Amino acid sequence: MTREGILFIISAPSGTGKTTLSKELIDFFPQLRQSVSFTTRPMRAGEVNGRDYHFVSRETFDVMVAAGDFAEWAEVHGNRYGTALETLENARRGGFDLLLDIDCQGAAQIRKSYNRGVFIFILPPSFEELQKRLEGRKTDSPDVIGRRILNARTEVREAVWYDYIVVNEDLSVASANLKSILRAEGCRRERVLPPIAERFGISMEE
Amino acid sequence: MTREGILFIISAPSGTGKTTLSKELIDFFPQLRQSVSFTTRPMRAGEVNGRDYHFVSRETFDVMVAAGDFAEWAEVHGNRYGTALETLENARRGGFDLLLDIDCQGAAQIRKSYNRGVFIFILPPSFEELQKRLEGRKTDSPDVIGRRILNARTEVREAVWYDYIVVNEDLSVASANLKSILRAEGCRRERVLPPIAERFGISMEE
Repeated sequence: MTREGILFIISAPSGTGKTTLSKELIDFFPQLRQSVSFTTRPMRAGEVNGRDYHFVSRETFDVMVAAGDFAEWAEVHGNRYGTALETLENARRGGFDLLLDIDCQGAAQIRKSYNRGVFIFILPPSFEELQKRLEGRKTDSPDVIGRRILNARTEVREAVWYDYIVVNEDLSVASANLKSILRAEGCRRERVLPPIAERFGISMEE
Repeated sequence: MTREGILFIISAPSGTGKTTLSKELIDFFPQLRQSVSFTTRPMRAGEVNGRDYHFVSRETFDVMVAAGDFAEWAEVHGNRYGTALETLENARRGGFDLLLDIDCQGAAQIRKSYNRGVFIFILPPSFEELQKRLEGRKTDSPDVIGRRILNARTEVREAVWYDYIVVNEDLSVASANLKSILRAEGCRRERVLPPIAERFGISMEE
């Protein structure tokens, strides 16, 4: 019997390096998969149903909302996005870990509705550094960057309820810290003991 | 302002590889030091006072016990050994981490008296494998090995209250897991936030 899969939820202000860091984790851990969300937005060229998203109609989505099928959902620019409880449960019971990149509102919803998961917040070294990085990308106008920084100032206050905080000052250090967190969580007693307690004659009562 | 030092407590049945693994951790983490105990046993050739132990007289030791100076203490073969609360507090406030190899009774005393620390239990892959390893050492008689296995069977039941469990099947995997635990604990929100909350304008209230 293997241990249950672990749900890792990562949030970070825009520009903090979350996408790069998440990709490194997925590449590094064979038992870790990216969570696939449901969405009502139309499929784009190159996207694959079931890999990038589960693409569903607005009607289907709303039936799922009414049935309480989502651990979290939100509407963004007129499209709905949601994480199904079944996605999380399948991973847990199947013994593979799940990585979910999501904003603080979504993370808070999951904490409430699912009551499981390891919550990780990635912080930039400072707001000044975050601004520099956003400017360096050369993809956003000064206005957009200003808004992102303002959002970041609000978002970082949510870090207070996350389990772990990783400051992304140096990418390789931040990546090593994230890998350690994922690995260490797999060693937590409540996860290690259930599948092996019997072998050692250990009762699960503390 | 740096974060507070973390106390790591490691317990394991005899023959599980605790000493080898602890040495690797000490060599790996610059900010990690081995905790130095007080003892009433006479100093041996090659030992250094303050490095191997704080060597004290029985009278001094008993005064310290009466004053409540110890986080844990025990008598073994007529000699007393103890970990001073001051040792733990100096490390915590000094911002360096402390590694303490100690049996389950000592670990349980610390959990109660000090109410801090990360508790890690190292398990052998099985009792059969543990017996093989003890026999392979060629240092113990079959009688002594039998007693060690019997002790191990009692000790592993204590794993149930530890924070982490590392199964030492493959030494390099066990070592990597321990390093991850130490590193991940340094990323826990309650440790990361206090020194940086002000910089980000984060209130420490959840």
